[in-house]
Amino acid sequence: MAGGGDALDLAAIDAKAELTAEEKAALVMSLKNKLEGLVAQHTDVLESLAPKFRKRVDVLRDIQSKHDELEAKFIEERAALEAKYQKLYEPLYSKRYEIVSGMVEVDDITKSEDETPTEQKEKGVPDFWLNAMKNNEILAEEIRKRDEEALKYLKNITWCRIDDPKGFKIEFSFDTNNPFFKNSVLTKTYHMIDEEEPILEKAIGTEIEWYPGKCLTQKVLQKKPKEGSKDTKPIIKTKDCESFFNFFNPPQVPDDDKEIDEDMAEQLQDQMEQDYDIGSTIRDKIIPHAVSWFTGGSR
Amino acid sequence: MAGGGDALDLAAIDAKAELTAEEKAALVMSLKNKLEGLVAQHTDVLESLAPKFRKRVDVLRDIQSKHDELEAKFIEERAALEAKYQKLYEPLYSKRYEIVSGMVEVDDITKSEDETPTEQKEKGVPDFWLNAMKNNEILAEEIRKRDEEALKYLKNITWCRIDDPKGFKIEFSFDTNNPFFKNSVLTKTYHMIDEEEPILEKAIGTEIEWYPGKCLTQKVLQKKPKEGSKDTKPIIKTKDCESFFNFFNPPQVPDDDKEIDEDMAEQLQDQMEQDYDIGSTIRDKIIPHAVSWFTGGSR
Repeated sequence: MAGGGDALDLAAIDAKAELTAEEKAALVMSLKNKLEGLVAQHTDVLESLAPKFRKRVDVLRDIQSKHDELEAKFIEERAALEAKYQKLYEPLYSKRYEIVSGMVEVDDITKSEDETPTEQKEKGVPDFWLNAMKNNEILAEEIRKRDEEALKYLKNITWCRIDDPKGFKIEFSFDTNNPFFKNSVLTKTYHMIDEEEPILEKAIGTEIEWYPGKCLTQKVLQKKPKEGSKDTKPIIKTKDCESFFNFFNPPQVPDDDKEIDEDMAEQLQDQMEQDYDIGSTIRDKIIPHAVSWFTGGSR
Repeated sequence: MAGGGDALDLAAIDAKAELTAEEKAALVMSLKNKLEGLVAQHTDVLESLAPKFRKRVDVLRDIQSKHDELEAKFIEERAALEAKYQKLYEPLYSKRYEIVSGMVEVDDITKSEDETPTEQKEKGVPDFWLNAMKNNEILAEEIRKRDEEALKYLKNITWCRIDDPKGFKIEFSFDTNNPFFKNSVLTKTYHMIDEEEPILEKAIGTEIEWYPGKCLTQKVLQKKPKEGSKDTKPIIKTKDCESFFNFFNPPQVPDDDKEIDEDMAEQLQDQMEQDYDIGSTIRDKIIPHAVSWFTGGSR
């Protein structure tokens, strides 16, 4: 190992091989990194050391390398463990989907039951995902009254890891008879710079193909033309409005840092954190425990 | 499984068996929970369902139970994996400590080296932990100039999980010739309500036994007595001041919520988050990668 000058490389290795960030408090954002610069704070400690100390530090570095090799194995094994269990959950999620969407009927329901004709026509569990999400505090804040009509057509939510670039993707499947938009699947993808930390690079959502007059993320305002105006037609303006479906149009980090000032950067970072919070709530809470959320509000 | 009414129990089970919170963004604080109340948002979804739907939901609940059993196993296996690697790191940390503190000399250093007498007297790697911490942005902000003299005597930092209550403990070992305080070990313990989430319950630090006139967390102010006053002795007042060692006197959550208003609660939550951030930085970054931090500032 060289006596100095490789500190930057070491830093790069360490960033990848970060130990358990399971309880990591802060979500470090790409924006913050961009603004603060990615240069490691090299302090030339080594260069200023006497030869004796330098030799001790060289031995310490060998110890650190051995640690980092072990740690890389740990991270690998942990990822494999997670993947193993995701596979085990898969058939349970499929079964849940079949019952919720009404593709499959549960065994002990027969025609002889005391039911009204309306119930017999209704398949599955209506409004399952809408109610599961509404019982979660973070998501409840995002869902407007107007959104609920469209979210009734939501029939499944799934997620998977993506590898290149690293991150994860959430898929929302909608019934094809949904009168609000054409898409049968809306996705939200998070690209992570560092999955351990985690550092979000960017979020990408499906562009929603709203049917005419059905857009939930914009409101149409009709204004009467000014009195005495030649044109007698009302002026039609659209205005962005709050909606759960804005989740599919996440905040974007500008390519050029110079485009934004500090206040804007802070605001953008807050928005990105909130957006990530919604995504990870859906992934870590709603999808694995949807039934508990539906029945009474899990935590 | 009962048709309803057990939603609260389900919620309790789910809170424990939360899936991978590795990339969890927000640190949910005990304070927030206290203020918002711990009552699950039960929405009586089940009671309002027709019998047919209720049967489907019962089947869904069985599926959820199967999922939660698997998930509990996953969490157990992941904890075992982490413990296995912590054991593997242990001898490397010990070796590091021996070299840093000068208990053991590295092999290829001999008396024949071109060294000054001062160097020969200096054992180990001086200021190792101080410099490792100073190269981390979060910790650098906490370390005042005044603190550095005392942190030179810091000879090791270790951590371990604690089980009852759940959480972790960080130990700072100081040289016994440290002229600032009597304690040879300062500890900081974090009690977690939920390790997966994570929800911090409280933090506890060692009370530091400062030697007279050596306290770094208070400043002594000498004021001249007012002119014409009978007493001619200067008035001595102490004032709290910023110091890394305030880390061992963490913010306390009052037992009675009514003691604090909303602004105070928010301020306290910020302080607790910052305190937890410092603790988890030391545990997850400094301890595993101390050499990389020392040599050039890991990330």
